[in-house]
Amino acid sequence: MRKLLFIWLVGVLVFLFESCSESRQVKYVFYFIGDGMGVNQVNGTEMYLAERDSVIGVKGLNFASFPVRNYATTYSSYHGVTCSAAAGTALATGEKTKNGTIGMDKEQKEPLYSVAVRAKEAGRKVGIITSVGMNHATPAAFYGHQPRRTMYFELGKDAIEAGFDLYGGGGIIQSVSPKDSTNLFDLLHESGYLVVRGNEMFREKMVETSKLVVIQGGAQTTLSYAIDREEDDFTLSQMTEGAIDFLSRGKQGFFLMVEGGLIDYACHVNDAATAFREVEDFADAVQKAYEFYLKHPDETLIVVTADHETGGIVLGTGSYQLNLRVLENQRVSLEKLTREIRELRDMKSNQVVWEDVQDVLAKNLGFWNTVNLSAEDEQTLKNCYRETFSGKTVEMVKNLYSENEPIAQLSINILNRLAKISWASGGHSAGVVPVYAIGVGAERFNGRLDNTDIPKLIRTLAKYE
Amino acid sequence: MRKLLFIWLVGVLVFLFESCSESRQVKYVFYFIGDGMGVNQVNGTEMYLAERDSVIGVKGLNFASFPVRNYATTYSSYHGVTCSAAAGTALATGEKTKNGTIGMDKEQKEPLYSVAVRAKEAGRKVGIITSVGMNHATPAAFYGHQPRRTMYFELGKDAIEAGFDLYGGGGIIQSVSPKDSTNLFDLLHESGYLVVRGNEMFREKMVETSKLVVIQGGAQTTLSYAIDREEDDFTLSQMTEGAIDFLSRGKQGFFLMVEGGLIDYACHVNDAATAFREVEDFADAVQKAYEFYLKHPDETLIVVTADHETGGIVLGTGSYQLNLRVLENQRVSLEKLTREIRELRDMKSNQVVWEDVQDVLAKNLGFWNTVNLSAEDEQTLKNCYRETFSGKTVEMVKNLYSENEPIAQLSINILNRLAKISWASGGHSAGVVPVYAIGVGAERFNGRLDNTDIPKLIRTLAKYE
Repeated sequence: MRKLLFIWLVGVLVFLFESCSESRQVKYVFYFIGDGMGVNQVNGTEMYLAERDSVIGVKGLNFASFPVRNYATTYSSYHGVTCSAAAGTALATGEKTKNGTIGMDKEQKEPLYSVAVRAKEAGRKVGIITSVGMNHATPAAFYGHQPRRTMYFELGKDAIEAGFDLYGGGGIIQSVSPKDSTNLFDLLHESGYLVVRGNEMFREKMVETSKLVVIQGGAQTTLSYAIDREEDDFTLSQMTEGAIDFLSRGKQGFFLMVEGGLIDYACHVNDAATAFREVEDFADAVQKAYEFYLKHPDETLIVVTADHETGGIVLGTGSYQLNLRVLENQRVSLEKLTREIRELRDMKSNQVVWEDVQDVLAKNLGFWNTVNLSAEDEQTLKNCYRETFSGKTVEMVKNLYSENEPIAQLSINILNRLAKISWASGGHSAGVVPVYAIGVGAERFNGRLDNTDIPKLIRTLAKYE
Repeated sequence: MRKLLFIWLVGVLVFLFESCSESRQVKYVFYFIGDGMGVNQVNGTEMYLAERDSVIGVKGLNFASFPVRNYATTYSSYHGVTCSAAAGTALATGEKTKNGTIGMDKEQKEPLYSVAVRAKEAGRKVGIITSVGMNHATPAAFYGHQPRRTMYFELGKDAIEAGFDLYGGGGIIQSVSPKDSTNLFDLLHESGYLVVRGNEMFREKMVETSKLVVIQGGAQTTLSYAIDREEDDFTLSQMTEGAIDFLSRGKQGFFLMVEGGLIDYACHVNDAATAFREVEDFADAVQKAYEFYLKHPDETLIVVTADHETGGIVLGTGSYQLNLRVLENQRVSLEKLTREIRELRDMKSNQVVWEDVQDVLAKNLGFWNTVNLSAEDEQTLKNCYRETFSGKTVEMVKNLYSENEPIAQLSINILNRLAKISWASGGHSAGVVPVYAIGVGAERFNGRLDNTDIPKLIRTLAKYE
């Protein structure tokens, strides 16, 4: 009898829930993408933060404690290991494509339209922001349609064409057309976009316009690494906070994609300290969304994921002890260490002695001070010094996004080994990526997931039809 | 108004649900532990199975499609990287401990009692089965209390002391006391346990006794690797099926722990083909539980997890292409390959020529037939042949669970590299482990998880108080 009553009541409840559920309609979508952030990048950051506090275990990042924790597969149409373009397209449009392709099908014939385009069509405000170039692969996949991810100028034009409310990033890559010298900044201006530089101008000018591009000033097209940050540097967290304020004017709701693009850059050069600090910084940006969610719990959905794993990072090199704490001695990114060594070369007119190099490594990595080096490691460093400071042109260690001084890369590799961290390569891996969700409909992100499922679920939940 | 009615009805419903919920009480618990099965071991197996069918992507394993997919941290009391003893203790008792310790606190003073002990106290039947030794670390953590995991004889006695209904494994490690020659088989007999060997005897004798130990016959203390399996070999899937039949006699419900112990063995020697086949085989065992769940959906809970990641496996070595399909050419495990090479040494009275070795590698790994080797790889193999077949005593490559012929290990390493698989070490890593769940209360395994949370949740859900 009680059972029958129970079943009947469930029926009534479902009906009532359906009629009341308008109040739990997704109006605000946050879609965070940590570029290159595999499960071990997250776990590594949490273990590093704990070790920094002299604790064995983890110090939880905000998003990794969301009620939904899952993971997704990332392979692209023709490759077991995806690139950022195909992964971005999958996460943006729900369709797999050929590596290198932005927002087009795998035959590179038809455009694919992203969940951000659908959000715009559904009347939502749309923002696409990143810590790297605003026309880099991941953000571009939300508005662009090009067969090659390196067609930066064309992708910039696609951004204008898409007409989203806000674009943000470190800068614009290839802002001048290689063909006819057209300038993207001019085109943005002609299309009614206001381009602002840095956080102060962002906060000041956002009230004056409805179409905004925010970048930092200067020649760089990415924000600074968190580990290299100086006081006035523009941060992803500030950009996220500003984006929320800008997009939440009016009543129509918004879709905001935020990419932590520099995690990938750091992992490509196997620089764990810099990568972990970037993941932490990414969590600071997520925090802004989380605070918004706490104010609008019945209308907000936050999804945090990654496009692929970079570097094949492994925590542990065979022994049971990790030594992540040693990374605390690293005070600059590999790229900045390279710049310091180059400055040294310039300053000393390339007559750099071993003691000069030692000073730079001691200051920036703690070598010989707080970090003990084995005789073998010291010898390897000395040999590298002899080979690369002998006056001849030095051959840089090239990677996807940077070229580094051999002795800088070697030093970072040594520090990573001392931390008991192993890297498989300077490229991507097919490791699964984590998926975290909180808010209205978050539970739909449980169960088997491929990267292509994520935008489809967002579209369904936010009713972008 | 509708909202108020809704809230009131929820209250009524919760009350009714509580009174009706006896019909959804967990009566049958399956706790599957893939030893060494990190997220990449699962993902790698799924990608390998797809590539074997000439598909880029994944061919889903049953458990990886369960509604709950999460992951857990694994660090132990004093180490970032856990061993199987501390991880087994965490998964069994809900408490972290010192590496090397079985079922005792981290000071090694007090015993810790497992969820299986609680199940037994709550009147459930209990079975603990594994593909490795029944007194190996993982199974032992469910019934044993010893400061060192290598105290196999004492752990065997602890099994008798715990008095569970069923123990199963490849065999019993160190069945004779190193101190006084007491034999565990005698002790088992005296305590009323019937020891049966192989599946046929298992099926035949299980009706005659209430206390059973099932092992395979022969000198081995583990089952055969799936990749090496011969027709009459006893399998984990058969053992699981038999355990279900044995434990489900009577009405009291059961708790069954099933360890896929050989995944770890294969990963310790960085043998991907053998590891992936073991994960597949583990899924076959899970399938038996899943079929049981389909018959008893309102009374069954299945949890599948792992104790730690082994080897630091990474799918991808820098390029975007994987080549997992090449592993299909491997027909035996590294250990069996070693045995074949030893047999060759014996047969040829250690006068083995290069062509003999080539024949063995061609037959078992497809080298020179279906697997093309570079001139460099061939030269490396030849050099290894010259060093290790020159008549002197050969030094084996030692690992935790096996010692292998150098040329066998080298060949497996080459095949893994050709498959674009990287391994960080021959030990464990701190990589997160996957957690899958289906059945009554499965949703409770969502959200942030540490390995110690898992047995606590099982205990709560199954009401072992």
